[in-house]
Amino acid sequence: MRSQMRVEVAEQPEALRRTFEALLPQAAELEALARDTRQILFIARGSSDNAAVYGHYLCSARAGRLTSLGSPSLATVYHADLDLRGVLAVAVSQSGATEEIVTTLDWARHHGGRTVAITNVAGSPLAELADVALVTQAGDELAVPATKTYTTQLAAIAVLARSLAPAGAGLDPRELLRVPDAVAEALEVAPAAEELAHRLADTATLVVSGRGFAYSTALEIALKLKETCYVTAVGLSYADLVHGPIAIVDADTPALLVAAADGPMLPEMTALAQRIASTGAPVFGIGGDSEFAAACQTALPVPPSRMDAGSSGSAGWEGGLPEHLAPFALVVPGQLLAEALARAKGLDPDAPRGLDKVTQTDA
Amino acid sequence: MRSQMRVEVAEQPEALRRTFEALLPQAAELEALARDTRQILFIARGSSDNAAVYGHYLCSARAGRLTSLGSPSLATVYHADLDLRGVLAVAVSQSGATEEIVTTLDWARHHGGRTVAITNVAGSPLAELADVALVTQAGDELAVPATKTYTTQLAAIAVLARSLAPAGAGLDPRELLRVPDAVAEALEVAPAAEELAHRLADTATLVVSGRGFAYSTALEIALKLKETCYVTAVGLSYADLVHGPIAIVDADTPALLVAAADGPMLPEMTALAQRIASTGAPVFGIGGDSEFAAACQTALPVPPSRMDAGSSGSAGWEGGLPEHLAPFALVVPGQLLAEALARAKGLDPDAPRGLDKVTQTDA
Repeated sequence: MRSQMRVEVAEQPEALRRTFEALLPQAAELEALARDTRQILFIARGSSDNAAVYGHYLCSARAGRLTSLGSPSLATVYHADLDLRGVLAVAVSQSGATEEIVTTLDWARHHGGRTVAITNVAGSPLAELADVALVTQAGDELAVPATKTYTTQLAAIAVLARSLAPAGAGLDPRELLRVPDAVAEALEVAPAAEELAHRLADTATLVVSGRGFAYSTALEIALKLKETCYVTAVGLSYADLVHGPIAIVDADTPALLVAAADGPMLPEMTALAQRIASTGAPVFGIGGDSEFAAACQTALPVPPSRMDAGSSGSAGWEGGLPEHLAPFALVVPGQLLAEALARAKGLDPDAPRGLDKVTQTDA
Repeated sequence: MRSQMRVEVAEQPEALRRTFEALLPQAAELEALARDTRQILFIARGSSDNAAVYGHYLCSARAGRLTSLGSPSLATVYHADLDLRGVLAVAVSQSGATEEIVTTLDWARHHGGRTVAITNVAGSPLAELADVALVTQAGDELAVPATKTYTTQLAAIAVLARSLAPAGAGLDPRELLRVPDAVAEALEVAPAAEELAHRLADTATLVVSGRGFAYSTALEIALKLKETCYVTAVGLSYADLVHGPIAIVDADTPALLVAAADGPMLPEMTALAQRIASTGAPVFGIGGDSEFAAACQTALPVPPSRMDAGSSGSAGWEGGLPEHLAPFALVVPGQLLAEALARAKGLDPDAPRGLDKVTQTDA
């Protein structure tokens, strides 16, 4: 029997299609709200915070906004008195009911910010509070690990960035609407993910790394592995890994590298894979091109058809997403890997110990 | 023979005294530069980035500024076109020569930001570039792991926050000048740190957590353990730990919790220690009060005189630093632990494998 998590991973293409269809028409409303704002403040925790990291890159690189990732405790505990005029505060919460996220968005509003909620629950406290609610259309998510609610949060963030971005920023509906098909295609990597899970069944620690847009994906995959498989997965940016703790990667601590199929970060990620491999430590890959895959012991290509692409390079790899949208598809092999690894370890991927679905920081 | 790292850890009180003396007179210059700015953008990597996380809390909670932690690749690779007027860009780099940090500060200047450099090297490219250079007075740091350059970066950040903050924010010279003595006192925990290091000699993975101001300290201690001892140390905020990966804490993956001796986070950190202990997993502490210490298997109190404080509670614990300055002293037991643990593992704390002193992301 398939786990609920596995079922929900497979529902992502439809969930994404529904979400883009529902949210793209809100562009005018978002544009009006965001007029005269120059900064964005994301407010989130957990998987939603990893979605916010994607938002940080997307809104900075493509929509020209200085972006902060807020620490809710600054509002809820320290009662920071900030001037948030000209700031678009964007709270991200699957349930829309996590108290500290609701409190922090309310705080942002009282300090002059304009407010957006990204949540999967219409009518939730967060949706009710915000100037504009972007309600994702993931449907009910029953497994505790967030999967389709995470990728639909990415979709809401992309719609938001589009409403702030100049034309030609790579966020036109035509471009966004390629995402669901690319995610569907990424699901085909499932057998290879299963195989990799069996190789990793005895691994207790793992470093997951990415750079640029794919950094958010590395963080999310690390979180999935931590909460679903109780693996000590360290999510690190390429730079932070290379600057310091690269020493922890060794025979007992393999590296899992996440890379888009093109863009300026790919050569660096390939070189990193080669460098780690040269020390004898195991290195696995998600995404990338054929050269990246060749540098890894095993790579889960995105899309999987790239397995047959030979050495034609990224130019010949049709069907993939450009770097700034690649995180939608790149997370899928990581979700599949976490789900398969939980089973390989005899765990229930749907109900990790110690976690509830609606998260409250202060129990 | 003492390692160079151990020598430099012990030099911190003097280094901090020199740094405060050198930088406090720059307050007027900083005030003039920061006039009309409403946001702060920190630019840093590695240990300096952990100092910036402290700056994020301090400048938000005490100086009323919305604060972003920048991702250098947004400037150096994606060439993000941001409007940084009204933004104080603060680059932090020990050497002042890390190319991507210099490039990113230059990018911030070209996009309208006012610029501050925090570096230990007068005349470095970063110092030359910035509108105002805050040159820390750590002296030469020869060991690869940053210790005294890290705490003097905290000092520069505190001076910066002071110049932006209203009076009564807890950043008066009188308050800042208590820091060197408190750090000197924290050094007395060395024998207890040595003992804890021996208990942890076979530990391969560890979760280090803190909340609020002490979160930055948890990240820095995790980084020190990773780069010096090749331990897979996961630095996590309290909230992120409780929201997700708390499942990874078990008999093989102890928790190391960092808490100030007072403030609103202390009861939560004590409750977290009790919760982890109740699962049978080992939990160790740095800082806190006697109740926090009692919840941990072993705690390294800050200041160490608290070991004899009995059950009098934090009110009776004279000599300590208030929560917003506690990170200066709280990091010391972590530095001592990393140094001792490296030796216990037969490693050279001064020269971790794979690391150079001046970090360049793109080799």
